[in-house]
Amino acid sequence: MTDPEPIPDVDPDVDPDRLGPERLLAFSDGVVAIALTLLILPLAELVPETAGPEATGLTVLRENLAPIGSFLLSFLVIGRFWAAHHRVFARARTASRALVQWNLAWLLTIVVLPFPTEMVGAYSEDPFTLRFYVGTLLVSAALLSWMTVLISRALGPAARAGLRDMSFGGTTLALVVVFAVTLVAPGLGYWPILLLFLSPVLDRLLRPLTRRVLTGSAGR
Amino acid sequence: MTDPEPIPDVDPDVDPDRLGPERLLAFSDGVVAIALTLLILPLAELVPETAGPEATGLTVLRENLAPIGSFLLSFLVIGRFWAAHHRVFARARTASRALVQWNLAWLLTIVVLPFPTEMVGAYSEDPFTLRFYVGTLLVSAALLSWMTVLISRALGPAARAGLRDMSFGGTTLALVVVFAVTLVAPGLGYWPILLLFLSPVLDRLLRPLTRRVLTGSAGR
Amino acid sequence: MTDPEPIPDVDPDVDPDRLGPERLLAFSDGVVAIALTLLILPLAELVPETAGPEATGLTVLRENLAPIGSFLLSFLVIGRFWAAHHRVFARARTASRALVQWNLAWLLTIVVLPFPTEMVGAYSEDPFTLRFYVGTLLVSAALLSWMTVLISRALGPAARAGLRDMSFGGTTLALVVVFAVTLVAPGLGYWPILLLFLSPVLDRLLRPLTRRVLTGSAGR
Amino acid sequence: MTDPEPIPDVDPDVDPDRLGPERLLAFSDGVVAIALTLLILPLAELVPETAGPEATGLTVLRENLAPIGSFLLSFLVIGRFWAAHHRVFARARTASRALVQWNLAWLLTIVVLPFPTEMVGAYSEDPFTLRFYVGTLLVSAALLSWMTVLISRALGPAARAGLRDMSFGGTTLALVVVFAVTLVAPGLGYWPILLLFLSPVLDRLLRPLTRRVLTGSAGR
Repeated sequence: MTDPEPIPDVDPDVDPDRLGPERLLAFSDGVVAIALTLLILPLAELVPETAGPEATGLTVLRENLAPIGSFLLSFLVIGRFWAAHHRVFARARTASRALVQWNLAWLLTIVVLPFPTEMVGAYSEDPFTLRFYVGTLLVSAALLSWMTVLISRALGPAARAGLRDMSFGGTTLALVVVFAVTLVAPGLGYWPILLLFLSPVLDRLLRPLTRRVLTGSAGR
Repeated sequence: MTDPEPIPDVDPDVDPDRLGPERLLAFSDGVVAIALTLLILPLAELVPETAGPEATGLTVLRENLAPIGSFLLSFLVIGRFWAAHHRVFARARTASRALVQWNLAWLLTIVVLPFPTEMVGAYSEDPFTLRFYVGTLLVSAALLSWMTVLISRALGPAARAGLRDMSFGGTTLALVVVFAVTLVAPGLGYWPILLLFLSPVLDRLLRPLTRRVLTGSAGR
Repeated sequence: MTDPEPIPDVDPDVDPDRLGPERLLAFSDGVVAIALTLLILPLAELVPETAGPEATGLTVLRENLAPIGSFLLSFLVIGRFWAAHHRVFARARTASRALVQWNLAWLLTIVVLPFPTEMVGAYSEDPFTLRFYVGTLLVSAALLSWMTVLISRALGPAARAGLRDMSFGGTTLALVVVFAVTLVAPGLGYWPILLLFLSPVLDRLLRPLTRRVLTGSAGR
Repeated sequence: MTDPEPIPDVDPDVDPDRLGPERLLAFSDGVVAIALTLLILPLAELVPETAGPEATGLTVLRENLAPIGSFLLSFLVIGRFWAAHHRVFARARTASRALVQWNLAWLLTIVVLPFPTEMVGAYSEDPFTLRFYVGTLLVSAALLSWMTVLISRALGPAARAGLRDMSFGGTTLALVVVFAVTLVAPGLGYWPILLLFLSPVLDRLLRPLTRRVLTGSAGR
């Protein structure tokens, strides 16, 4: 950004390649880092609420297993999503206007997550809360998959070859299945989310489809 | 910053070009990312407040449509403003002392925004709250426009040509109109804010004026 | 950091120049940005507390002039301190272990500031609160001045010449005077803080002393 | 990331060196900076709770020595851990998938820390709280040591020579001792944590072992 080289006399809007994705990534990292860290605040607030004549630190843990579980689950999920974002955007060469906007939509799903997480801690048996939580994860994963497609189509064929073998739709597909289960059998609670551990397997199964989608249309 | 090249024997205050805008941008991104993410905290705090014997996650959503709406609106607005900041500062070559200070004033409007946002959730019918909220947005947009002028005047003519065609005053003009409407007809509530979607049209209408302002004075 | 060049066979602890200050700056920017943004949280929490049958947005503002004033003051002060940090560290070539530790101490004063800020809003007439707030500012400014000396002594004479003319001790001196006034005449309240506007004048008065201190010892 | 050079026709997953650790570091810095800054929030919330007819700023401090002490301790510890992370990762050349995941686990220990910190403020005499707090620190230090091993094994012998003399397991060993003391003699409270000041001595004692572990396997 500080390079003193003469700026070519072209309209930068026609030549968006001059805008690197660094700031987009730094901003996204900031939002994700904050959302991840804010997850602990409701837990920290439980401490004064539990404080009673005979309360100890152990009481706080025992009486709040649901919020602690939902904190750990959301931390894990945001961490995984950030790592996937990391891998996909490492190949991005430009931050087009469309990518900036889809990325903002993705950030919205991450910023919102502490809200359903808090609900899961408060209403762990409630089917609506379960679906709202899983639905937020599903939208987030789907947006990440869609951005992978966008970035892939802006790359040359050689670089795209690398993306092609990356995790792409497995997490999204796993969450579609989990969401369907929460609609059909909400009584299973949060256990179906463990299907997320199958997403590497699904990634491998989806590979032929992934290759076709990512190389489907030329140019950006 | 780590380049081992010998530092020329000049007063850096006379040669401000040596200071790149990277840290200013990183700092601004941090502040905006945090303000954006903090917007969810009041929503997360609504969960324990709503908790009653028959409350579910759906109750939390239904009873808090106003705060949820003000959260989404503020998220959208901060996201748009950040994207505009991103585009404008991508052309900045230096972080002059004046730019640092105007940028701090702009950051103040972003940091403050969760406060009127919270008010909008609590007093959705109140004309003062409406004007305070729209007024904050207007000041923020106006400062962004002013920084565009400052950055443009520090550029060479070729680079300026690119800025000239960018969104510049449309959002500010739209918010002037919205603010005027809230003064005249507060009964319309928050609907006039939808005029923000017209800002690309206004940008195009303002283009001749924009060109004159941005290239008006040579200077650095 | 990703340069593929062969790493010379030297002990990096003996050659600390290889460690650039980038991460130190990014981390500091993060902490300052968060502290700056967290200042709004107590204001946002005032909204539900004020909510009554006849409360409006204007009521919230009117009944909370002290917290709003302390928010604005702390925002301004942290903003100024960050800008000073920005200017000084732009000349830093290395992040020595000592600089990392002094910088952590400085960050502590910034992180702590929301605490006395909150006190100022709650006990605006209390002399102890006044002294605690001004004292925190004074320690913060003094640490920044001390880091300027450390950075200056690690520079070559040419680069040091630039630092020499920068703001160095003016803010610290102004705060020493303000702190003394709060000890002698606490009845004046927060008005003496306006002396901070004199710090550019003090910087100029202190310039001969500054030059001697900053060039006093050679080497790093 | 914006280099326009042609992308070689290789699978980036086979050539992970192309992924620099910059984003991993920026993300980690963000999380640590936020966790560090969030520590002040419980203190800021004490102010309105203490507010009574005769309360002053001094009352707030006096009545909350335990939370203030736990804030300062956790700030110091997170600061030290960040500085150690800084030094170790300055040598990292790549962000492998494994390193990203271990780093997320480390970030979890940092994000969680405000929770036991809050407990320490509320139940300063409770043995379980003491062990939970020290245990969290121990896991954090152990993960940092393990990442040092991972990074070291990915380096060439020359670069590894530098790491070899760095602090590696001293803090972890000190915390193992502190944790053992809290199991045997919880009545000593938080004083054994002062043993952390001995970690440089332990680092020196452990040096022969450190060299063997860090150079044990020839690296990838």
